[in-house]
This record gives sequence, C-alpha cells and structure tokens, in this order.
Amino acid sequence: MKKYVEAITDMDKDFALWYTDIVKKAELIDYSSVRGCMILKPYGYAIWERIQKILDQKFKETNHENVYMPIFIPESLLQKEKEHVEGFAPEVAWVTHGGNEKLTEKLCVRPTSETLFCEHYANIIQSYRDLPKLYNQWCSVVRWEKTTRPFLRSLEFLWQEGHTAHTTFEEAEQETLKMLDIYADFCEKILAIPVIKGKKTENEKFAGALSTYTIESLMHDGRALQSGTSHNFGDGFAKAFDIQYTDKQNKLQYVYQTSWGISTRLIGAIIMVHGDNNGLVLPPNIAPIQIAIIPITTKKSEVIDAAKMIEAKLKSQNLRTKLDLTDKSAGWKFSEYEMKGVPLRIEIGPRDLENNSATFVRRDTNEKITLPLNNFDAKEILDAIQKNLFDKALAHRNKNTFNAENLEQLEKILSNTPGFIKANWCGNLNCELAVKEKTGATARCISFEPANGKCVCCGKNAQHLVYWAKSY
Amino acid sequence: MKKYVEAITDMDKDFALWYTDIVKKAELIDYSSVRGCMILKPYGYAIWERIQKILDQKFKETNHENVYMPIFIPESLLQKEKEHVEGFAPEVAWVTHGGNEKLTEKLCVRPTSETLFCEHYANIIQSYRDLPKLYNQWCSVVRWEKTTRPFLRSLEFLWQEGHTAHTTFEEAEQETLKMLDIYADFCEKILAIPVIKGKKTENEKFAGALSTYTIESLMHDGRALQSGTSHNFGDGFAKAFDIQYTDKQNKLQYVYQTSWGISTRLIGAIIMVHGDNNGLVLPPNIAPIQIAIIPITTKKSEVIDAAKMIEAKLKSQNLRTKLDLTDKSAGWKFSEYEMKGVPLRIEIGPRDLENNSATFVRRDTNEKITLPLNNFDAKEILDAIQKNLFDKALAHRNKNTFNAENLEQLEKILSNTPGFIKANWCGNLNCELAVKEKTGATARCISFEPANGKCVCCGKNAQHLVYWAKSY
Repeated sequence: MKKYVEAITDMDKDFALWYTDIVKKAELIDYSSVRGCMILKPYGYAIWERIQKILDQKFKETNHENVYMPIFIPESLLQKEKEHVEGFAPEVAWVTHGGNEKLTEKLCVRPTSETLFCEHYANIIQSYRDLPKLYNQWCSVVRWEKTTRPFLRSLEFLWQEGHTAHTTFEEAEQETLKMLDIYADFCEKILAIPVIKGKKTENEKFAGALSTYTIESLMHDGRALQSGTSHNFGDGFAKAFDIQYTDKQNKLQYVYQTSWGISTRLIGAIIMVHGDNNGLVLPPNIAPIQIAIIPITTKKSEVIDAAKMIEAKLKSQNLRTKLDLTDKSAGWKFSEYEMKGVPLRIEIGPRDLENNSATFVRRDTNEKITLPLNNFDAKEILDAIQKNLFDKALAHRNKNTFNAENLEQLEKILSNTPGFIKANWCGNLNCELAVKEKTGATARCISFEPANGKCVCCGKNAQHLVYWAKSY
Repeated sequence: MKKYVEAITDMDKDFALWYTDIVKKAELIDYSSVRGCMILKPYGYAIWERIQKILDQKFKETNHENVYMPIFIPESLLQKEKEHVEGFAPEVAWVTHGGNEKLTEKLCVRPTSETLFCEHYANIIQSYRDLPKLYNQWCSVVRWEKTTRPFLRSLEFLWQEGHTAHTTFEEAEQETLKMLDIYADFCEKILAIPVIKGKKTENEKFAGALSTYTIESLMHDGRALQSGTSHNFGDGFAKAFDIQYTDKQNKLQYVYQTSWGISTRLIGAIIMVHGDNNGLVLPPNIAPIQIAIIPITTKKSEVIDAAKMIEAKLKSQNLRTKLDLTDKSAGWKFSEYEMKGVPLRIEIGPRDLENNSATFVRRDTNEKITLPLNNFDAKEILDAIQKNLFDKALAHRNKNTFNAENLEQLEKILSNTPGFIKANWCGNLNCELAVKEKTGATARCISFEPANGKCVCCGKNAQHLVYWAKSY
C-alpha cells in the first residue's frame, strides 16, 4: 500500500530518474521481456486514446480518411527511394522466416509507411479526379534503436502517419503547413505545451523529404523535444514509385506528396513539461480523469451520498470524474491522484458536510478552496488550471530562451542554463556541425522569423534564424 | 467511369468470385505487394471503425480497460505453455535481425498475445485486491497462412483480444460467457447476423484453453463462419507462467484466466450474409453512410437546395448521411451507392420537387416509396431495413438447418444443400474425424441444447448435440 506515498526522485537532482519514476509510479507503462518495447498500461493508454480521439476528429474535419496498410514492407519496395532507404534500413527489424520456411525475400516490419502508400497510390491514382488523396493511418511502427527510453525512444511505438497526394507543389506545401498548424494547435490548446514552429535544416530533415517542418517544445530540464513533423516530398517519391495522373489537358503528370506524424512521444512531453516532484500533472483537456472525488471517510452514509451527488452533477456536465469509494485511506488516495496528475480533487468529509461545502484542491498550484455544495463551477476551475499550465510552460520557455551572437556565447549559455538559443546561421553544413560538436546543441529548427545578423559560427551573413538546443 | 456499373459475378454462379468482386468494387480493400496482406481502404476501414466504436463502448461499460502490449514475443516466452506453442509456432513470422545485427534470440510477430499478458500479469498481480484484471487490446496480429482470402484469412489482420484474470474458476467461466453474449448480441443487433452460440469440441478448441465458446453464423452459400470466440483457460496458463496471488487467508493461489476476440473477419460475414448481385448490403446500424442523397440533376439550384435541406434534417437526427453533389450522372451514383451497400437512397429531382416530395429507395428490397418532403421518417425506414435484414438472414439459416440421424443422411443433405446439420454425437474424437473425412463438415459447436438420441456416426448414446457444417 505504500507505493504511492513513497517519494519519487527529486527532479532537480536527477531528471532522468525522476522521469522513469513517474512513468512507473503513475502507472503509465511497464517493461516487458522484449528489449526496448513497453507495455502501455490502462492509464497510459487512456491518455493515448484521448490524443487519438481529439486529433482523429481534426483529421476528419479536414477531409482526411483513415486506412490501414500492411505491417510488412518487402526489401525491394523499401529500396525504391534512395534517400529514404538509406535513412531507415539501418534501423529496421527483418522477418526472414514465415512458419517453418525461409522467405525468398525478407520483409521489414514498417518503420514508417511511405513506400506502402506510394505503391498503393501508384495503383489507385489515374486522373486528376482522383486527387487529392488525403489518407491517415493509426498504427505501431518499429525502429531498432540501441538505447531506449519510455515514450521518447522505443523499439516499437504507437503513432499516426498521414500520407497525401496532390496535383501541385503549392497544394502539397499548403497541406504540410496546415497539418503543422493542427499539431501546434493541439499541443498548445489541449496539451498546454507551447511550441516553436519551424523548418528542419537539410541535415536534420526526414529521409526522402524536400522539406520537413517541425514543432519543438522545451522540457522542464531545458532540453528540446521534437513533438511532431510534417514533410513536403515534392514529386521525389512520385518519380521513384511512378505515381502519375492525367491532368485536365490529358497530359501525364507526377503527383506531389506529403506525410506527417505524431506519436506516443507526446506523452513524454506532457510528463517533462508539466510534471513536478509529486508526480504527473495532466492538463484538464487531456486528462482521462479530470476530477477525483474523495470522501474523507467511507463509513458515513451521508458523506458518501454527498460525494455521489457531486459525481452525478459533474458527470451531467460531461466532466470525466472518478469517485473513489475503495477502502484505502483518504491520505493514500490524495497521493495516488496527485501522482497520476488528476487536475482537480474534491474532498468531502463530515465537517465539510456540516457547512454544506466541499474542499477543492488544484493539482497545478496545490491551492485549497472551500466552496458551497450548491454553488461551485468545476468547469471554471479546470479552465483556470488548463490556462495556468500553459502560461507556466510558456514562462519557463521564455525564461530559458537566449540569444547568442557567437560560438563562445552559445557555449557559455548552454553550459550554465540549458534551453533554446536563438542564433543566426549562414546555412552552411560545416557551421551547423561545428555548433553541434562544440556545444552538443543541434539546429532544432529554422525559425519562420527572418535572420537578422551574422552566422553564430563563421560570422558571415546569415541566411536563417535558428533555434538551437540539446534535445531528446 | 464504368467501374461501378460493370456487373459483378453472379453469386449463384461463382460465390467465391462474387465475394472478391465485392471486396474490390465496393472499395473495401486493395492488395499490396506483400503476399496475403491487405490494404483496408477508407470505406472498409470505416466499417471497422464502427465495429470498434460500438464494441469498445460495450467493453468499457463492463469495466474492461484497454492496454497495449509489444508487437514481438521472444521465442522462449512463446514456448512457456506447451499446447499454446504447438498451436501457434508453425504459423508465426520470425524476426531474426534488428538493424544490421543478428538477434541472439529470435522474436515472433504476435499471432495472439496470451504469453505477453501472462508475463505482465505475473508481474502486477500480487494480492486478491489486484483482481479481477479485465484488459483488452486493439491491434493487428500475424499468422503465416498458406492460402489467404480478404477478411476471412490473411497473413495480418486487425482484431481485439481481451485477457482477464480472476480469483475463481466460476468467475472466469462467467466472464467467458458474458463476453460470448456481448459478441452474440453485437452480431445480431448491430450486424443483423443471427448466430448459434456453443462450445468447441476438444479437437477444435483454442491451443491452451480449457474450453472455447464460439458464435457461428451461416453464410449465403450455406457455409459456416466462426465469428467470435471466448476461451476459459482455467489455471493452465497461470501455472505455466506462475501467476499467483495471496488470498484473504494469506495463502498463495493461482489465478483463473480468459481470453476472447473478434476480428475484421466480421466484415467478411457482413458481405456473405447480406450481400446480393448488386453488391454489398450494409445493415443501417453498422453502415458508415446510412443514407445517400442524390439530386437527379446538379444543375438546378432549387433541387440542390432541397437536397441540402434534407441533408441538414437527417444530420440533425444524427443519421450518417452523404449528399453527393459530384458531377457524375445520377444513374452512376445509384449504382455506386448500391455497390457500397448504403441502406437508403433518397433521390430528388425537379418533378419530385413540384410535388414537394422525394423518392426513397431501400437497398435491401429495392422498394421505391414517394414521401412528402415535410413529413418523412428516415429513422423508421432504417429500423425497418435493419429488422428485415436480420429476419431474412434468420429465415435463410432456418431453411438451411437440417437434422441428420446417421452418416448417410448427413452426407446426402450436405451434397444437396450445404448448411448447418444438427446431429447427435457420442463425444468420441474418432467419430468427429470420421464425419469430417466423409462429408467435409466439421463440428462447428456443441449446442447448449442437450443431446437427444444416438451418435450420428457410431450409433452409441450421444453426449452432445452438435452443429456440423462446412466452414470458412
């Protein structure tokens, strides 16, 4: 019974250990005997289900359709696009035997499904009337990572991958940016995580993409996390896979394609942006349980009746509510729901009842408020929590975003306080690599703001304003 | 433009070809370059999404929680339960290489996840307070089948697998039967497919189960389809995986387990129970589109306005509606929505409008009704279609269910009209195998009704009343 009350590692002492303590003690995941693969426990999976539900609706509102592609990719198919195969082949799992037979061609377990979508599109797209194709798939993918970490980097993870085909480059670019916006909006409004939108450098872009856009968020420890990406493929894949259509003038044309994805990694972001030394902190808009109702005693029927009345009221407002009537102690329950990051706790005991009131405890601020039973607005408190979490995360990011004029400054800032460094860049790969070698920071993204000075590395005129950071 | 209008194979001439025509022309699936793996296209996947949504809600209402287990099972873990590994090892896909390295232990791509759930349960179940565990998972599984057929038998398929652990055998048995009832209810009320509930023979039960329950349905061609199964494992897996808990008397006890599943195979059942020579026929309760609204002309604004008014009205009633304003001909659209099995079509043209009415065409009966625009009840028509489809399927099953007293009768009936044969059985494996060898029919299930005579094969006193049939 002591597992929740047991303290977790202090986040300021050992952030990595604090993180793994949370994923275990908030009952998000468990390990299995398969190296690097995690078990998503009910509470962890419930967060993923909420992510799916909200994003899936956004995808459908923007006319995307869900499909399901095979789990396997034949080696020859993976090899069709040169850059793509070079990017992924070193990290795939290979099926070589089926039943008792050796396969004539080995199959990889999909690390991503561009090649399968392209093959399918080549089959089903004939005319401009067939375009655009706006497909999405929810599935798991496998990447043979050497070091793994729950949610952030695992051999297998759950994600969605959108794959679209268009008649023009411009339409593909629009789609790429539209999906980036949907991701950014989702992170900010639902997960209460502020993000920087930008473009990846040539060196950091997706294998096979013409351009990769990204949303980058800043974790509590000052490291950045790539939280979603959206790629414009131009007609590169179309040429490799021969995806052509006849246009209105009856001429053959290649399609322009995009792909975009987010994954269970977002759960890692939630933990590392909002969590504290009492455990997980969930923004109300994503929390599987928004409000936990805890009777101080389960032995007095009038207390239980009042708790049930509160539950009925909250459920009628469509708030995700859990009334805990188990025989554990109230104190134990407080710690449990704190550890699990439930945004709001309502405590009710005999003394509250005498005053016809209940005690409301906010997870984000630990603030306790007494409110009359007949006159409280839980929705309003949840909205305030949601806003406060976003504001706090934004303030933290602002506080940890610095400007650097040259490499020495950049190095010095990063050695003191990790965070985002905004610094100009000439666009030369050597400078990008030099920054990485000297400081450990990579170019997280090229800002949509213009460059305004000299390259942080070589001092030549800058092409881009770049957000640099150490990252997960 | 002719693909929909093009006739499909007559189902009475070649049922197998009719079936593959439908899956292709109703745009449910497409093939990929991976042998035996299918692509679920938007319309096929939308049916699966409806199946998921409705069943997932049922699972949650009965206190089940969703989780996600790894995609891989190490060889040693698969081998822990003897009967289970013998049942599955011959049909799994083996991953032998990860990245560029040969694995020290090969991993199979899950064919089913009993072993993973058992390993997890052994870790997380300590006390009677931890029980019951009621978990479910939605995922894809892989079985290395030699011959494959869309939805019915494929290398990879989508399914759900429930896995539960209980303190007593009786509780596990109750769970097993409860889930069987949920499946049966779903098939009958939502898919309009009548099912026979029963128990598998020892020879036909799941590898590792103590008893397997099944729902069996009869396809249009008289062959049976196993449509869902629910297994009681007793404490067999618990002993193999050492899943023990301390009971209230502080004594160590093994848990009792169940598992249960349904898959995309149900889409095959829908096709083969309700489909006709014009294509797919979908019961309204499962149809992604319940009503297609088709203006006879898209050139007259008053017709389009009226069509939009109908659409708004139906959507406000939460009916899944599609208004087709594309520039294809009305006739082409009629065929398309017929092929796709949309239950109800509303046609509206200038002449209808003059009479302030619209034409309603039922997919199940092809009946045309003219109804006033201000006074029609689409929901009522959909309910009538749902009921009629079930009644028709039940009548078909009743007409094709026969009794047989001996092997000659059984053989004769099956050679004339395939269907279910109810016949008594002594319980002896040799008799079961003899029936199969002579007639091609297998014991689909032991009926919950008692035996009432002599064994159809050996003439000795019967133990069970069995439904026999040729099956998919």
